[in-house]
Amino acid sequence: MVRRRHCEARVFKYLPAMPNTYFISQRDLDFLLFEQLGIQTLANSEKFGDFGQEDYSMIIGEAIRFATEVIAPLNQDSDRIGATFSDGEVTTPPGFIEAYAKAAENGWIGAAHSPEFGGMGLPMVLGCVLNEIFLGACTSFQLNMGLTSGVGHLIESFGTDEQKAMYAERLFTGQWAGTMVLTEPGAGSHLADCRTTATPVEGEDHFLISGGKMFISAGEHDLTDNIVHAVLAKLPGERTGTKALGLFIVPKYLPNADGSLGDRNDVVCAGIEHKMGIHGSPTCVLNFGENDSCKGWLLGTEPYKGMRQMFQMMNEARIMTGMQGVALSGVAYQNALCFARDRVQGISIKSMREPGAKSVPIIEHGDVRRMLMTQKSHVEGLRALAYYAAFLADTEATATDPDAAAAAGARLQLLTPVVKAFCSDKGFEMCSEAIQVHGGYGFCGEYPVEQYTRDARIAPLYEGTNYIQAADLLGRKLPMAGGAPYRQLLEDIGAWVANAAGNEATADIAAALGKAHGALGMATMDLMQASAGGQLEFSLSVATRYLHMVGEVLCGWLLGQQAEVATAALEAGATGDDVDFYKGKVLTAKFFARNVLPMVRAKAAVIKNHDTSIFEMPDAAL
Amino acid sequence: MVRRRHCEARVFKYLPAMPNTYFISQRDLDFLLFEQLGIQTLANSEKFGDFGQEDYSMIIGEAIRFATEVIAPLNQDSDRIGATFSDGEVTTPPGFIEAYAKAAENGWIGAAHSPEFGGMGLPMVLGCVLNEIFLGACTSFQLNMGLTSGVGHLIESFGTDEQKAMYAERLFTGQWAGTMVLTEPGAGSHLADCRTTATPVEGEDHFLISGGKMFISAGEHDLTDNIVHAVLAKLPGERTGTKALGLFIVPKYLPNADGSLGDRNDVVCAGIEHKMGIHGSPTCVLNFGENDSCKGWLLGTEPYKGMRQMFQMMNEARIMTGMQGVALSGVAYQNALCFARDRVQGISIKSMREPGAKSVPIIEHGDVRRMLMTQKSHVEGLRALAYYAAFLADTEATATDPDAAAAAGARLQLLTPVVKAFCSDKGFEMCSEAIQVHGGYGFCGEYPVEQYTRDARIAPLYEGTNYIQAADLLGRKLPMAGGAPYRQLLEDIGAWVANAAGNEATADIAAALGKAHGALGMATMDLMQASAGGQLEFSLSVATRYLHMVGEVLCGWLLGQQAEVATAALEAGATGDDVDFYKGKVLTAKFFARNVLPMVRAKAAVIKNHDTSIFEMPDAAL
Repeated sequence: MVRRRHCEARVFKYLPAMPNTYFISQRDLDFLLFEQLGIQTLANSEKFGDFGQEDYSMIIGEAIRFATEVIAPLNQDSDRIGATFSDGEVTTPPGFIEAYAKAAENGWIGAAHSPEFGGMGLPMVLGCVLNEIFLGACTSFQLNMGLTSGVGHLIESFGTDEQKAMYAERLFTGQWAGTMVLTEPGAGSHLADCRTTATPVEGEDHFLISGGKMFISAGEHDLTDNIVHAVLAKLPGERTGTKALGLFIVPKYLPNADGSLGDRNDVVCAGIEHKMGIHGSPTCVLNFGENDSCKGWLLGTEPYKGMRQMFQMMNEARIMTGMQGVALSGVAYQNALCFARDRVQGISIKSMREPGAKSVPIIEHGDVRRMLMTQKSHVEGLRALAYYAAFLADTEATATDPDAAAAAGARLQLLTPVVKAFCSDKGFEMCSEAIQVHGGYGFCGEYPVEQYTRDARIAPLYEGTNYIQAADLLGRKLPMAGGAPYRQLLEDIGAWVANAAGNEATADIAAALGKAHGALGMATMDLMQASAGGQLEFSLSVATRYLHMVGEVLCGWLLGQQAEVATAALEAGATGDDVDFYKGKVLTAKFFARNVLPMVRAKAAVIKNHDTSIFEMPDAAL
Repeated sequence: MVRRRHCEARVFKYLPAMPNTYFISQRDLDFLLFEQLGIQTLANSEKFGDFGQEDYSMIIGEAIRFATEVIAPLNQDSDRIGATFSDGEVTTPPGFIEAYAKAAENGWIGAAHSPEFGGMGLPMVLGCVLNEIFLGACTSFQLNMGLTSGVGHLIESFGTDEQKAMYAERLFTGQWAGTMVLTEPGAGSHLADCRTTATPVEGEDHFLISGGKMFISAGEHDLTDNIVHAVLAKLPGERTGTKALGLFIVPKYLPNADGSLGDRNDVVCAGIEHKMGIHGSPTCVLNFGENDSCKGWLLGTEPYKGMRQMFQMMNEARIMTGMQGVALSGVAYQNALCFARDRVQGISIKSMREPGAKSVPIIEHGDVRRMLMTQKSHVEGLRALAYYAAFLADTEATATDPDAAAAAGARLQLLTPVVKAFCSDKGFEMCSEAIQVHGGYGFCGEYPVEQYTRDARIAPLYEGTNYIQAADLLGRKLPMAGGAPYRQLLEDIGAWVANAAGNEATADIAAALGKAHGALGMATMDLMQASAGGQLEFSLSVATRYLHMVGEVLCGWLLGQQAEVATAALEAGATGDDVDFYKGKVLTAKFFARNVLPMVRAKAAVIKNHDTSIFEMPDAAL
C-alpha cells in the first residue's frame, strides 16, 4: 500500500505510477444498510420486492469489484492529464471511454432507475451506495456518469410519452448522456437573473434557445454519441424571475424518429475551466444558438414549471454532492489508516525513557489516533446521514400508510440541504486531515490524498453553495408545514436520548447528545424568534453555523444508534472479527459524542450572542 | 480586479493571463507595528538606533512596490510551470533568476541580518513584515530566498572566523544560496533516526558525508552559482540518537580560498517532488557521497551540537512558516474582498418583498460578510501574533534590563510553536474560506485563491508537523522554568481583561476573553495534572486542540488591544478615512470575541471529558 520505500538504501527508487489506492469496507456498508437502517425490509414492498439482502450484497460486491478493477485505475491520469479542450471538442482522460462503455453495459448508469426504461430498478439508497463506491474510485469519472440518470429521471417524471420513449431508456442505459444546464455568468446562486431565452416558433413544436451557460459539468465530451441538455431558459412574456423559466430538452444531435442521429444542433462548447480538482470532469461553457438555430423542446407540456422540475433533479444531485464528501473522505481515511499502519516513525510515549527504544508505526501515537478517529467518526456519521436520507426516499415511495410516506418525504426534504452542505464541508476537512496523517508525504502527488482533497473542494460550491443550503434549511425547510417535520425530528432524537440514557453502554453518548440536542432546540427557538421579530438578516448570517449544528446532532444520533446496534450484537455473542468490529462502532460513537458534540453548545452560545458586528462594519473598513 | 467579465455578451471572452492580484494594506501594517506594538521604540537601542518609524515605513513601502512589480507577476507561472528537474539539474520557473538577482541587489535577502556581513541590519519584526509581503506575492519565490539568510545566520552564530568570512556575506547578499538539510525517508519528525553519516578524514579538516536526504526545499536550483547545504549528520562513536548529530557545511561547489568556485562536491539532486502546491519551490531528494567523496565541514569547532545549532535556524523557520499562513490568508482575504465588492448576485434580504428588486454586490449579503469578517479577524489576529513574537526577539536583543531580555526570550520560545502551528492551520482554513466567497469561480484557476489554498497546505506539515509543535508547547514550553513564563503570559492577559472590562468600548471583548482565558487556565491545570499523574499519553492526544485554544486566546488578546488603541484614536479625534479604519478595528475584535472565543470553552470541556476511546480502540477496528 505505501508506495515509497522507506528505504534502507541511500539512493531512492520511485515507483513509476500510483498503484490502486482504492479501499472501501463492505462490512461497514453492510452494517449500516442491514443492521442499522434495515433496508432489506424493502423486500416487503411491491416496488422493490425483487430484491433481498443477498441481492443487495451481491450487487455491492460487484460494484466494489468494478470500482477497484475498472474505475480506480483511471484516477491518477484523470487528475494529471484531465479532460482537454480543442476546437469545440472535449477529450476525456485516457481509459474513460472504455470504462464508460463497460459501466453502461453492466447497467451501473441507470441502476437506481425504472426497469421500464432499462434501469435496474434498485432503491435510491442503493443508488447512493453505488455513487459512494464509484465516486471514491474516481470522482471525475462518476461525475460524468452521474448526471445522465438524473436527466433520464427528469424526463421520466415530467416528459411527454414521446419524450420518454425517445430519451429515458437511451439515458438510463448510458447510450446517450445527460447534463443539467442552469448557471450563467450573471446567474449562479440567483437563477432569477437567467438571461437565456426560449422563443416559440410559429407552427413548430420546438423553441429556439439562445444564451450562454457556464459551469456545465460534462457539457461536452467523447463518451457517448449524443448529449441531452436539460436547459433552464426564460419564456417570453410578462413574467419575471424564476416564474418565467421553463425547462427544455436540447439534444446535441437532433434525433430522428427512430432514434438515429440527425443534424447537429446549434449548441457548442466554447471552453472548459482549469480547476483545482476533478480535472477529469470537463466543466464547460456552452453557447446555445450562436447561429440562431438551436432547437429545444419544452419538457412535458406545461410552461413555467422549469424551476419546479429542475428541483427534482437538483435535490437528487444535492444528495449525490453530499456523497462526494462521504466518498472522498472515506477513501482518504482508508489511505491514512494504511499509511499509519505502515509508516514507522518516532518511539512510543510509553517507552520514552527506555534507552534504545525502537521507532514504532505511527498508528501507535496518540495524535495520529486522534486524527484517525476524527476521520472515522465523521466518515461513518456522514455516510449514515446520507444513506438515511436516501432511504427516506425509498420509504416515501413504498410506505403503505400515506401518513408515513408523507412524513418520510418531508424529512427527506428537511435533510437534503444538511446532507449536501454538511457532508461536503466535513468531507473536505477530513480529506485535509488525511493529508496531515501522512506528514510531508501527504502533500506529494505520490500519495492520493492531496488529489482527494482538491477533488473534494468543489462539493461545498456546486449544486447551490453551502450557504444556499443553510438558507434553504432555515428559511424554507424549518418552517415547512408549520414546523411539524422538524419538531418531529427533534422529538425522535429526544426520545432516543431518553431511552439510551438508561442503557449503560450508551448512557454517556446519550448524555452528550442530550446536551447538544437541547442546545440545538434553544438555538432554533432563538432563530425563529429573531426571524419573526424582523431580524431575518441576523438569522441568515448564522445559518451556516446552524446547519453545522444540525449536522453534528444528526451524526451523533445516527452514530449513537450504531453503538446501540453494536452493543446488542456483542451481547448476543458476536465472535471472531466481529468482536473488534462492534467494539469499534461503540467507541467511534463515544469519540464523536465526547469530542465533537460539545461544539454544538458552543455554536448555540455564539448564536445567542446575537452579534451584529458584521452589519455595523463600514464597507470601507473591510 | 475581477477578471472574468460577468458579461452581457453571449459568447464569453477569457482574459488570457491573470493580472496582478497582489494586495496588502500598508495602513494595516503601520497600525500594528507603530500604534499597537510600538516598534519605533527600538530606535532607543544601540543595535537598531539607525532606524526610525519613517525608515521602517519607507522600507515597507519599497518592499510592497518590489513585491507588486517584480515578485507577484511570477506567481501564476510559478504554479503552472513550476520548477522542473532533468538530469540532476533544477530549472526554476520563468523570471525567477532575474527577480532573484534584483532582490539580492536591493538587499532584501539579508535585510534582517548583520550589516557586518552585508545585511541591512533590520530588526526581526521587520524581517517578518518583509516575509509576509514577499510570501503573499509569490510563496515559492520567497521560499527560495528565505532559507539563505537563515543559513547565513547559522554560520554567523556558530561558525569559525574562517567559515564566517567565507560564507556569511555571500549568503546575506544572496550571491550564494543556503539550505537546511534534515529529513530522511526514515527520519522526519523523529530526527534521532538520522542515518546520514559524517566520517572524519585523517589529516584533513573536512569530513566525508554519506547518506540520502529528502524534502529539501531549494536543495538544487539555478538561482545562484553555489548552494551551501547545512546538513545534519551522525558522527561516529558510541553516542546514539540526536546526541550523535553534528551540523556540517556542505557546499555544492568547493570554494577556493578567495571564494572563487573550485570542484563540484559529491552531492547530487536525484529528483524533485510533485506536490499539491508551491510548485515553484523545488523540494529535492539529495544524495550525499554517492562516490564517497562528499566533503563537509563541521559548523564551528564543537561536535555533537548539531541539534542545538539547527534549532536556532528551525525556530526562525517556524516563525516564517507561520508567516506563510498569515501571508497567504492575507492575500486570499484581499482577493475575496475585491470579488465580493465586484460580483453582483442575488437581491438583498431587505428588498426581498420588493417586486423587481435589483441584484446587489454580494458584499451586502450577511453570509458573505460573515465569511469576510471571519477571514479579516483571523488574518489580523494571526499577523499580530506572529509580529508580536518576532518583536519579542528584538526586545530580547535590545532590552537593557537583563530580566526583561530574558522574559522576552522565554516568551518567544513559548510562542514559537503556537505561531508555527496556529497560523499555518488557520491560514489554510482562511484560504479555503476565500474560495467559498468566490463560489464556483473560486475553484477555477482564473482566480488565484485556489492556488493560495494549495500553497498554504504545506505549512502545517513542514518545519515539524503541527502535532510536533503542540507536543513542544505542552511537553517543553509550558513546564519551562517551572512554568513561570507561561504563568506570566496568562497573568498579563488576565490583567488586560481586568482593565478592559472597565472600559465601555472593550467591556464585551474583555468579558468573552475572560471566559476563554479562564477556560484555558482550567484546561492547563487539567493537563498538567494528567501529565504528572501518569496520563501523559492522554495529554499529548489533546495537545493540538490545546494549542488551538492558546492561539485563539492570544489572538483575542491582541485584537482586544487593537480595539483599545483604535478606541483611543477615535476619542482623540481621528478624521477622514481613519474614522472607518478605527471603527473597523473595534468591530473586528468584537466579532472575534463573540464568534471565535466561545469555542475555547468548548475545547476545554472536551479536554475535561478525558476521553480515552482512541486508546481503547482496537487497531483492527480502525
